Amino acid sequence: MAYRVIGADVERWDAVAKVKGKADYTADIPVKNLLCGRIVRATIAHGFVREIDFSEALKVPGVLKVLTPDNVPDVKYATAGHPYALNPKSRDIEDRNILTRKVRQYGDDVAAIIAENPLAAEEAAEKIRIVYDELPFYLTAQESTAEGAVLVHEVERNTFASTVAKEGDVATGFEESDIIIEDEFNTQVVQHCHIENQVAVAYQDADSRWVCITSTQIPHICRRIVAQALDIPWGQVRIIKPFIGGGFGNKQDVTIEPLTVAMSMAVGGRPVKIQLSREESMACTRTRHAHNYKMKLGLSKDGTIRSLQSACLSDSGAYASHGHAVAAKGSAFLYAMYKLPHFEFAARTAYSNRTCAGAMRGYGIPQVIFAVESLMDHAARKLGMDPIEFRLKNMAPDGVLNPIYNTYIYTNKLAEVLTIGRDAFRWEEKKKAAREHNAVSRLKRGVGVAAFSYSTGVYPKSLEIAGCRLVLNQDGSIKLMTGAAEIGQGSDTVLQQMVAETVGVPYDMVYRDSNTDTDIDPFDTGAYASRQTYVTGLAVRRAAEELRGKILDANKKFNDIDARMCDIVDGVIVHKHDGSAIETLGELAMKTYYDIEDGECLTVDISNNCHFNSFSTGATFAEVEVDTATGKAEVLSVMNVHDSGVILNPLLASGQVDGGIMMGQGYAFLEELKFDPRTGAPVNNNLLDYKFPTSMDIGDMQCEFVEYSDPAGPYGNKSLGEPPTCSPAPAFRNAILDAIDVEINDLPLSPQNIFMACRRAGLV
Amino acid sequence: MAYRVIGADVERWDAVAKVKGKADYTADIPVKNLLCGRIVRATIAHGFVREIDFSEALKVPGVLKVLTPDNVPDVKYATAGHPYALNPKSRDIEDRNILTRKVRQYGDDVAAIIAENPLAAEEAAEKIRIVYDELPFYLTAQESTAEGAVLVHEVERNTFASTVAKEGDVATGFEESDIIIEDEFNTQVVQHCHIENQVAVAYQDADSRWVCITSTQIPHICRRIVAQALDIPWGQVRIIKPFIGGGFGNKQDVTIEPLTVAMSMAVGGRPVKIQLSREESMACTRTRHAHNYKMKLGLSKDGTIRSLQSACLSDSGAYASHGHAVAAKGSAFLYAMYKLPHFEFAARTAYSNRTCAGAMRGYGIPQVIFAVESLMDHAARKLGMDPIEFRLKNMAPDGVLNPIYNTYIYTNKLAEVLTIGRDAFRWEEKKKAAREHNAVSRLKRGVGVAAFSYSTGVYPKSLEIAGCRLVLNQDGSIKLMTGAAEIGQGSDTVLQQMVAETVGVPYDMVYRDSNTDTDIDPFDTGAYASRQTYVTGLAVRRAAEELRGKILDANKKFNDIDARMCDIVDGVIVHKHDGSAIETLGELAMKTYYDIEDGECLTVDISNNCHFNSFSTGATFAEVEVDTATGKAEVLSVMNVHDSGVILNPLLASGQVDGGIMMGQGYAFLEELKFDPRTGAPVNNNLLDYKFPTSMDIGDMQCEFVEYSDPAGPYGNKSLGEPPTCSPAPAFRNAILDAIDVEINDLPLSPQNIFMACRRAGLV
Repeated sequence: MAYRVIGADVERWDAVAKVKGKADYTADIPVKNLLCGRIVRATIAHGFVREIDFSEALKVPGVLKVLTPDNVPDVKYATAGHPYALNPKSRDIEDRNILTRKVRQYGDDVAAIIAENPLAAEEAAEKIRIVYDELPFYLTAQESTAEGAVLVHEVERNTFASTVAKEGDVATGFEESDIIIEDEFNTQVVQHCHIENQVAVAYQDADSRWVCITSTQIPHICRRIVAQALDIPWGQVRIIKPFIGGGFGNKQDVTIEPLTVAMSMAVGGRPVKIQLSREESMACTRTRHAHNYKMKLGLSKDGTIRSLQSACLSDSGAYASHGHAVAAKGSAFLYAMYKLPHFEFAARTAYSNRTCAGAMRGYGIPQVIFAVESLMDHAARKLGMDPIEFRLKNMAPDGVLNPIYNTYIYTNKLAEVLTIGRDAFRWEEKKKAAREHNAVSRLKRGVGVAAFSYSTGVYPKSLEIAGCRLVLNQDGSIKLMTGAAEIGQGSDTVLQQMVAETVGVPYDMVYRDSNTDTDIDPFDTGAYASRQTYVTGLAVRRAAEELRGKILDANKKFNDIDARMCDIVDGVIVHKHDGSAIETLGELAMKTYYDIEDGECLTVDISNNCHFNSFSTGATFAEVEVDTATGKAEVLSVMNVHDSGVILNPLLASGQVDGGIMMGQGYAFLEELKFDPRTGAPVNNNLLDYKFPTSMDIGDMQCEFVEYSDPAGPYGNKSLGEPPTCSPAPAFRNAILDAIDVEINDLPLSPQNIFMACRRAGLV
Repeated sequence: MAYRVIGADVERWDAVAKVKGKADYTADIPVKNLLCGRIVRATIAHGFVREIDFSEALKVPGVLKVLTPDNVPDVKYATAGHPYALNPKSRDIEDRNILTRKVRQYGDDVAAIIAENPLAAEEAAEKIRIVYDELPFYLTAQESTAEGAVLVHEVERNTFASTVAKEGDVATGFEESDIIIEDEFNTQVVQHCHIENQVAVAYQDADSRWVCITSTQIPHICRRIVAQALDIPWGQVRIIKPFIGGGFGNKQDVTIEPLTVAMSMAVGGRPVKIQLSREESMACTRTRHAHNYKMKLGLSKDGTIRSLQSACLSDSGAYASHGHAVAAKGSAFLYAMYKLPHFEFAARTAYSNRTCAGAMRGYGIPQVIFAVESLMDHAARKLGMDPIEFRLKNMAPDGVLNPIYNTYIYTNKLAEVLTIGRDAFRWEEKKKAAREHNAVSRLKRGVGVAAFSYSTGVYPKSLEIAGCRLVLNQDGSIKLMTGAAEIGQGSDTVLQQMVAETVGVPYDMVYRDSNTDTDIDPFDTGAYASRQTYVTGLAVRRAAEELRGKILDANKKFNDIDARMCDIVDGVIVHKHDGSAIETLGELAMKTYYDIEDGECLTVDISNNCHFNSFSTGATFAEVEVDTATGKAEVLSVMNVHDSGVILNPLLASGQVDGGIMMGQGYAFLEELKFDPRTGAPVNNNLLDYKFPTSMDIGDMQCEFVEYSDPAGPYGNKSLGEPPTCSPAPAFRNAILDAIDVEINDLPLSPQNIFMACRRAGLV
């Protein structure tokens, strides 16, 4: 199908405003009589608050109130930005209070100060004296789940979930195998490092309800969780999301909002702002789960996979947050990539005393893909096969039911991804050049590949629902309202393209708002699971089709030409047979507004329940150069190839891929949030000590798209938001392996870790 | 029909917020980097700007720009808040520029200053030197329409419209009459004196469109007029109306908004605020038209009206604004009150150089009712009949087609109004007591009555369209969105009651927003013509019925009980046969949101074209005491009786009536905006010199409602916003006549005017 606006490189609607500084982020919005909220954080990693003495804090001029757990509702709630489940068994674990008497991580929220200004709040915070009863703390899930470990929460062995997904019987599979490979992999804790830290302003509105302006990915879910935490009817809460400086999943958790509203309640509804520092955001919000994988692979001599067994131990840190979903999610995705006659995927998720882990771009898949794609290279090497050939041999077909996810996979173009990417990346040429280079140089080069698959949205595991409202203006322009959360990813722009495409108007005649507002914008669960262009897109397409129908009906009413004979092209109603103009959409719209007898403004307001899922796939091709003497690995070139269906906006899509590759590069080489083993305190929760890649670290970076229209996606599209960050780390790891013949199974591939691996391998 | 929420004295939703100061009016809304806009006003009443020298003004620190007519679009536009007409002949007269080179009234907008702060703007304004070429000016329509008068605008005799409405043939009627009465009446210029002066803030939004936050009664119309004045597509403008401190019709004109947006355009989209002073608001916005009526009445000996002829000359001041509609409107209304076998109603509207007149509560009817109801008392006296008896004898029936308005009048209960009012006011008793009092006192007492009729909305003369969107929240509460303009009159509250009534939830579970926003709220032409509870009410009722239907359909889907067997009562879905609960609306709503397979959020979004009109009627009964020595008349008691159909909220309704009576009392006795005959400058455009009644002037004030359900009104209701102010002035005038036997035919009945009339009558 030929599209006019879909597939075009239109500029994001907010680009100019953002460049000019005209786009208001939460902290930019002026608020009268604004008070400053500050969280008083635990200075131990595990224990109980025995006593809080805030008498001196209250004496600080400008301090209005100090809140302790006694001053907030005694309600346990869950913070994960998941759709609410009617079935109580499917709900997230309610293990958190707004302020806590039991400290479970260093920096836990134990009290809060409301002051006239930040300085008074800071001074007061220093004057609060807290006496703790300390407990032993655990900085890994291995420790916290050990026999006899003290309980972080009241669950046995600190393990709050364990599951096993299986197809066939792995034992039989291993019996049938000629070659068995076993490996163990560890991934580290990293943090999202979105540019804009968490910030929220809460106040009581003129109608006595509670408003929270907040930097969230999930306005409608945030509304629910704030209400749950404060034990008030959900309709009493209004969430407004302004422009956002990134989230990457961290703002798919409700962190500071309930406390911000509780603070406003404590001062009679006056506005209160909580703005986290970088240190707080990194140490006290959410992280990517550290996973340990034990994997076992059985192969035939010819390189056919017979059996794959995986056991994961996931460290959720101090609270459950997104819970076990992150660890369990990988099973279906591996099964979607490879033909696995016998497959078993076991996962356990446990509490520890590290910073609570939550959602982060990729949602567990970067971890499991690191493990399995390292394992695949191990297998290929053992078989003496090219890694791409090995993968192609074992590729899952498309057009099959995925029994683990219980969803039909209409398109899976991973084979094309690998073959097209091999050519585009010049795999063979680079591989050969590396060999020649390594023969004469101290610096060793290698190439690596890693593949992945990724779902789109959360159906059928959870609810997928989205709404869209469209209003036809007098001039033929269209106001688009959705509850989708533009968080910098460009969802607004793409949804505008969809309206323009389907109604038949130019892109710049579709307007989106700066804010997403739960009182006004249709219900949509928000920005996560790479769902907005798919789930919200389905709603937008349906709404746009409905509006188009209403427009053509109005054309029949006012111009007496049947809908089947008309089309709307570039904002003009035309005769379908020859394209000649009947009148502009604006001219027709004027009649819908102002005809005394028959005028009726055209709007559409729908809610759409999505009953599909589609799996994207892709791969990273990487070329690195390793200095074994220093352990430093440099990226020479990297390419992501994506099978994400129809690419709605190549400009935005390639931006997503570029960002995802860089996030994967940071995950691979640089990033790790570390904790002091003596205190449990985070030690590098700032952007000086926590390293992530900058523009100086970019190698030759490219992306390619393998475009097959997916039948389920609203415009043939599938997920693309998270996929780019799934496969870079193992591709880099495999390239290092190719360069120096050393298997490194723990992330990050930092100079120190590479150097130590080289030393163990006897290279230095 | 028994209502549960309609007819209840529910408290306005914004009452507490307004009392606590939590309700943000336009000037309360914090805006960053806000610039100050100031209008440079003409210091002559008529002429041309020959030269503007602003070089010194630009040197004032903090002054950014001076705008002259050269810097704004050279577009003529109309400012009246009428629905747009597709037929060019029905459109308002486009006779105004944002800034003008031709001065037509003292204070006309000739230039504008944009500065960092008000002080700099003021200083700059003083430094602007303007040279004028002056023309003769006219402070009455009689002068401006005289032979040889210089033209204010290029229309012959400065008369921009004249019309004649007729039924039968007045000449024949007078021939058939036994008694002929002829009188001339004059009404003065008064001003609305809303508490909040005009104020607007304009800026360019992140999407590059233009936002204007403004104190307007007509957000959606304002959007259109701003776009017209600036010659940009209408969809490029967004109007936001916060809480408003009154309008009374003055904010049914678009006054400062186009200039405010033009100023923001001149500074690259930075926010600019124009906030008029009281002096500017009174002299440079709009006023109530001064009308001159020449009336001739023919009667049979038995007191039957045979013929009524009326000729009106209306002074529109410097611009057309609402044009001729104000003068022409009376015809149908008189015909709706009295049986008039022969009737002719001629009206002319002319420019002068007084402050531009526009819409004001009652829209021409207080003027024509003053004239005709004075005339009726003249007739009653001549016939020796009681004024109430005389009116009852000539009353128009209900259930008839009004040929002049081309609308069917379903209910006209003026006869009941007069008979019920006579008893409730104790007319006979007071009349008798006055006679006894006057026999022994220097102070003379009398009673007077005056009746009126008033339409509801503007159909079939103009478009009547309104929209409503409803969103069912998870807790069963409902968000109500309309484009209706809450301007203090309580429309929001009553619309909330309608939703509560029809869906079946408690009033406090229906939420309305603080703002009306043209980008978000359904199209509605706004607050005027006493239309909101009627025209918007029809939309709200239809939307609420639709939502109710969707709820019962969802109940069928999830609980498998047919809609016909269920009801919704107080937020609970019940079995209709015995009222037993099925589940709460909140419980059902949760399924509509969160059922994975069948969830679909319930919203309704409709636009409703109204094809009715209903005529309210009513009367004022007044008792005054006149001191002929000083000319001072004191109100002893006053009662308004209203036939406004079903009273939706008696508490709010009686507030409307109280305010309307006081406005009528000010119109009758105190108010007049005066102009200096030497310069044309207004002389009392401030609240010290312009007198209106305060709480100290209230006599014994009461109201009664004659409730008959009107079949066309959504809940049997008819207009009530403007009616209360239509009849007080002639009732007071007639009471003075009853007290001292002196006919005063010119307003106001100020001490000076009464004294002079008494002197002419030989009383002093």
